Amino acid sequence: MNPDLAQERRRATFDPEQVTSLLYRGPENVRKRRYLQNAAIQDQVLRGSKPWAFQSRIEQYETALQMYIYMMNKLDEMGVTDPLERMYYQEAGAPHYYNPMALHTGMFIPSIEKQGTKEQKERWLPMARSLQLIGTYAQTEMGHGTFIRGLETTATYDPSSQEFVLNSPTVTSMKFWPGGLGKTSNCCLVMAQLITHGKKRGIHLFFVQIRDLKTHRHMPGVESGDIGPKFGFNSNDNGYLKLSNVRIPRENMLMRYSKVLEDGTYVPPTNQRIGYGTMVFVRAHIVTNSARGLSKACVIAIRYSAVRRQTEVSPGGPEAQIIDYQTQQYKLFPLLATAYAMYFTGRYAEDYYEQIASEIEAGNLESLNQLHAVCAGLKAFSTWACTAGIETCRLCCGGHGYSHASGIPKLYTYYTPGCTYEGENNVMMLQVARFLMKIYPDIKRGGPIHEFVQYLGADLTQKSCMTEEVALGCLLKAFQHRAARLLSDAAARIENLVRSGKSRQEAWDASTVALTWAAKAYCHTFVVRTFSQIVSDAAVDKSTKDVLTALCKLYAIDGIIENLGEFIEDGFFSPHQVSFLKNKLADLLAEIRPNAVALVDAFDYPDKTLDSCLGRYDGQVYPALYEYAKNSPFNEQEVLDSYHKFIKPAQTEQSQRAPMARL
Amino acid sequence: MNPDLAQERRRATFDPEQVTSLLYRGPENVRKRRYLQNAAIQDQVLRGSKPWAFQSRIEQYETALQMYIYMMNKLDEMGVTDPLERMYYQEAGAPHYYNPMALHTGMFIPSIEKQGTKEQKERWLPMARSLQLIGTYAQTEMGHGTFIRGLETTATYDPSSQEFVLNSPTVTSMKFWPGGLGKTSNCCLVMAQLITHGKKRGIHLFFVQIRDLKTHRHMPGVESGDIGPKFGFNSNDNGYLKLSNVRIPRENMLMRYSKVLEDGTYVPPTNQRIGYGTMVFVRAHIVTNSARGLSKACVIAIRYSAVRRQTEVSPGGPEAQIIDYQTQQYKLFPLLATAYAMYFTGRYAEDYYEQIASEIEAGNLESLNQLHAVCAGLKAFSTWACTAGIETCRLCCGGHGYSHASGIPKLYTYYTPGCTYEGENNVMMLQVARFLMKIYPDIKRGGPIHEFVQYLGADLTQKSCMTEEVALGCLLKAFQHRAARLLSDAAARIENLVRSGKSRQEAWDASTVALTWAAKAYCHTFVVRTFSQIVSDAAVDKSTKDVLTALCKLYAIDGIIENLGEFIEDGFFSPHQVSFLKNKLADLLAEIRPNAVALVDAFDYPDKTLDSCLGRYDGQVYPALYEYAKNSPFNEQEVLDSYHKFIKPAQTEQSQRAPMARL
Ligand SMILES: Cc1cc2nc3c(=O)[nH]c(=O)nc-3n(C[C@H](O)[C@H](O)[C@H](O)COP(=O)(O)OP(=O)(O)OC[C@H]3O[C@@H](n4cnc5c(N)ncnc54)[C@H](O)[C@@H]3O)c2cc1C
Ligand SMILES: Cc1cc2nc3c(=O)[nH]c(=O)nc-3n(C[C@H](O)[C@H](O)[C@H](O)COP(=O)(O)OP(=O)(O)OC[C@H]3O[C@@H](n4cnc5c(N)ncnc54)[C@H](O)[C@@H]3O)c2cc1C
Repeated sequence: MNPDLAQERRRATFDPEQVTSLLYRGPENVRKRRYLQNAAIQDQVLRGSKPWAFQSRIEQYETALQMYIYMMNKLDEMGVTDPLERMYYQEAGAPHYYNPMALHTGMFIPSIEKQGTKEQKERWLPMARSLQLIGTYAQTEMGHGTFIRGLETTATYDPSSQEFVLNSPTVTSMKFWPGGLGKTSNCCLVMAQLITHGKKRGIHLFFVQIRDLKTHRHMPGVESGDIGPKFGFNSNDNGYLKLSNVRIPRENMLMRYSKVLEDGTYVPPTNQRIGYGTMVFVRAHIVTNSARGLSKACVIAIRYSAVRRQTEVSPGGPEAQIIDYQTQQYKLFPLLATAYAMYFTGRYAEDYYEQIASEIEAGNLESLNQLHAVCAGLKAFSTWACTAGIETCRLCCGGHGYSHASGIPKLYTYYTPGCTYEGENNVMMLQVARFLMKIYPDIKRGGPIHEFVQYLGADLTQKSCMTEEVALGCLLKAFQHRAARLLSDAAARIENLVRSGKSRQEAWDASTVALTWAAKAYCHTFVVRTFSQIVSDAAVDKSTKDVLTALCKLYAIDGIIENLGEFIEDGFFSPHQVSFLKNKLADLLAEIRPNAVALVDAFDYPDKTLDSCLGRYDGQVYPALYEYAKNSPFNEQEVLDSYHKFIKPAQTEQSQRAPMARL
Repeated sequence: MNPDLAQERRRATFDPEQVTSLLYRGPENVRKRRYLQNAAIQDQVLRGSKPWAFQSRIEQYETALQMYIYMMNKLDEMGVTDPLERMYYQEAGAPHYYNPMALHTGMFIPSIEKQGTKEQKERWLPMARSLQLIGTYAQTEMGHGTFIRGLETTATYDPSSQEFVLNSPTVTSMKFWPGGLGKTSNCCLVMAQLITHGKKRGIHLFFVQIRDLKTHRHMPGVESGDIGPKFGFNSNDNGYLKLSNVRIPRENMLMRYSKVLEDGTYVPPTNQRIGYGTMVFVRAHIVTNSARGLSKACVIAIRYSAVRRQTEVSPGGPEAQIIDYQTQQYKLFPLLATAYAMYFTGRYAEDYYEQIASEIEAGNLESLNQLHAVCAGLKAFSTWACTAGIETCRLCCGGHGYSHASGIPKLYTYYTPGCTYEGENNVMMLQVARFLMKIYPDIKRGGPIHEFVQYLGADLTQKSCMTEEVALGCLLKAFQHRAARLLSDAAARIENLVRSGKSRQEAWDASTVALTWAAKAYCHTFVVRTFSQIVSDAAVDKSTKDVLTALCKLYAIDGIIENLGEFIEDGFFSPHQVSFLKNKLADLLAEIRPNAVALVDAFDYPDKTLDSCLGRYDGQVYPALYEYAKNSPFNEQEVLDSYHKFIKPAQTEQSQRAPMARL
């Protein structure tokens, strides 16, 4: 054990186990989580392979495929059915491989479950669960991701044969990006424009078999393949798909909500938004997932910062642990706070989803808009914060952060797509803004509105209650005030533009930057509120609560300082109050310092999950780096072939021009 | 040609050629640049290879080695000696490969030139130029990068044999990271602690041969290798080096400034800082280089944003070019402005370096501190802004940005190390702060100080002169005011802490965040000043100047809005003035909109240099993406071997458990 890390752990003022319990919902769940992680860690098959970074892309894909199939079987054998518990096992078993069948389990099966008829479920689900069908969710096309109503793939109903004829009429209409589509899947749910009786009926889902179930070769009319190497996700064969007159039976349209009758009569769904559930569910989970990414990066960067020593503090004296530099703390501790904030918020969003989901299933869509806006906003807000945070953690590790030995670059490339898929972040923020502007008249009128948005109607002339002590309540009020004011500003801007002669649409379009500011502020407030509420309610001892409270305050104060203009341009804080905040910020960094390592320990990631030379629990960073380097495939030969192929001939050629001197 | 792009070019209100000329210092240089780029583009050998992303790491290394050796010869044949001109050729010839011999040309040879004696130069330079010696610069160790005085490698002088004995006494003392050290180099300059007569004499450079010049095998006592796969730079064999009693002759210490005599007497340099020149030179060039990275990303993202259409503006109407969304403009146009700002600033820093360098060579070190601070600060400021900007550009391309087909991930991994190497950015900012605090008494006293820092003494009670028109002069004054105020705040904080009983060192350590704010504000001001000066001085026609002025204003206003708190917490701007700025910001986005494509065209990067399906000059984005996908190595087989190895057996096993239903 590295002595600095050992000392850090001795110095902590609280018991990390209490925080672990809080994070993972109680000691029983922590025990289960550890049991599953250990099962994965001790498994000889999962241990076998060489580091992912030493593998070619095809090896990465093969390893991932092998491991995930193996883990699927193991989990089935163990009788583990809960998706979160399965994830814990997989995260420790194959931390650095993106599952080629992720879409099969995560989107294909759930979509059939939610949008298929009883018959369809009976027909496809058993086959899907036994891997006879390996499917994916093919929505995005080369030309359309955000605007799904613009998808170009067509499914034209032919009443004579009672079939749909699927086509990709243009280059841009090719499906592009779906996970596992290129090589792994033999079928998929294709989102396509339904045409019956010569009329467009909007987009619907169709079950399409794309490869032969026995030979895995393409079905007639199907062209598909991998889309090529990417920033990350390379163990996944995100794919493209071109359909030419592919015929599927009428029963292959997912018909739980809308239907096409035998004669081609189209029966629309009772409510257009009924299918939103899955989307919202996925977004809620992305929040927790981003928190997971950032928390891993924090574990690595903070442990390493306790081990790394750089620069003598006084001439000839010992070098400081870099975690003792205020600048380093100012980068890392707010991120640590963010990881906690997002983790708690994600959990809250998931719970909220569960609560509303049952209402929705029962056909009560009243809260759907609220839920939809919250999840869209938090998805965007959290992925932005967490992925940028991962990069900051990497940079805080200096040069070594740039090596794949650190594990951080891989975290970044793994989590950054969260900003883009499942609703591009900027577009998400505009949806939040649209929701807020829609209810804005109600807010202004003081009508009965949801508790989440009630504060938006508050009196904007009020000033902050902030004192030197910097109470959580005053911090939260500040966030509420800022969100309310920015919303009111955006609304005023739109009204002004309308008054000056622009149409509503033009005014909106010329205000989307201001609207985004308001939407972000709304999300930010939501996170601060959730974080402080969960910390207040937490059943932990006093010392633990103190630490979490410090973290929560740091999150809020850092959020204010980073966006200071928005908090003070209307004079909400006095200059004096701003100085309270700045002083408190510096104090909090110092206060959190002795608990930083214990706070990352509390995330309870085994070394196998982190897969990082820098983030090791025992702090034996340098021998691990040396080991990583020595094993680099480049070092298998003392002299590479390329020396003989390129260097030597160049030297010979050059020496013929300029005669070689004697060394 | 994509019709949208064609129309963009028609709509531009200025002649991009004038801007190209301004960027590359006149039509003559533009002509040379194009000549060299074309020579590279048309070269059959350089055209040959498959896309870098389809290659394994070892293939990337081999391709890079082959290409750079080839280009070196070609450039020699063509008689091109200017480093910038050589770069133009290489950038077009091998845009996506980091040269395995970059350190040989960029650091090894220049260091010998600058720090070697006449004899040493005569001995090593001809051999280095003819590639008999391939060298690198081995400074960083596993345990030390920032704090080079803490390097642990020792060079102990043995007067009996008149040799130095080099050792890596610990794991952390291993050299780690030097480019080309792992496999390519046969020698290097090792930075080591000199010990003579049993006394430590500080760090010095030693020429050490690490591989046999004929066989390329390791010399006795040398262990070296590649450090393994990294985030990027994978065509380079950044290496490690462990030395065990390696003996080198006395003449192998670089002795232009300090010397060890035959008997071991140590002769120190006349001035400790004499060797700083190279470091400062490199940092000045990193500024321009970062600008190059960001500008490429802007070209790609802005052209693509003009081609990409997403979302109907009015129901059933055409979809908008995404560049028409204000949110998209608000992300991209300030970055475009930043690319220009940094490009001009880098050029200014390079010129300033040249001016001071001759003074320094002549032994006049008066301006060295000023130069040093400027280059350290701009290096950090520009790399932060540019690399974060590259990621924003990538995200602005939606899903396709994440594919290596976009070219942007590679740009990011190529440029982000600029934040770390050649002086870690946070550490650089603290050096700027140290410089500013050192001259702070002079500033306060109003003594004679350099024009760069004169404004820092200005009256802090003054308010902004900003009017609705938003003049450049008022913008610059705002930046100066903010920098002066933040410096004064940091100084006051330190004084307060000292008064409250802390030592100067403790007070400094507890104020580094505030000091960093001040240092950043100083750099930011420098950039705004340089940008506005170069735009004012530019010999271009009025329409061109208008466009550049708009860009410059956008850079400044965006900088204010993004850091608004720092500009208003002391009431420097009134709320009214802030609203002028916000309105102007929106107006400028609209004003720049029609010229955005022409402004990126003006960077004049050939498609080959960009190597991006999204950034193509002709806008044929989608066919290019399809081509990229089809050629993915995964698609060489219709059914991958892994299907037979893993999927099929899993299906069989599963179907034995659950009998297969009929599809
Ligand atoms: C790793 C990865 C995995 C994926 N997996 C899948 C999958 O399994 N299945 C699947 O179907 N898809 C998948 N996708 C695709 C993904 O869902 C889309 O990339 C995503 O929906 C964004 O759409 P886009 O790429 O068309 O971006 P675009 O919509 O083209 O966005 C580009 C830019 O335009 C802006 N923009 C677009 N519309 C508007 C608007 N109305 N207002 C303002 N700004 C706008 C955006 O903000 C963005 O800056 C994946 C993508 C990635 C990167
Ligand atoms: C791609 C790449 C190529 C490279 N090529 C070469 C090469 O060719 N030759 C070579 O010699 N080296 C090379 N390097 C190494 C590089 O020079 C070092 O990584 C760099 O100097 C930073 O040092 P470090 O890694 O020790 O970071 P550290 O100093 O360990 O920094 C880690 C963290 O500690 C903080 N910190 C450190 N000291 C202080 C302080 N005094 N005050 C406040 N904060 C502090 C930093 O801000 C940072 O957040 C390369 C690195 C990379 C990534």
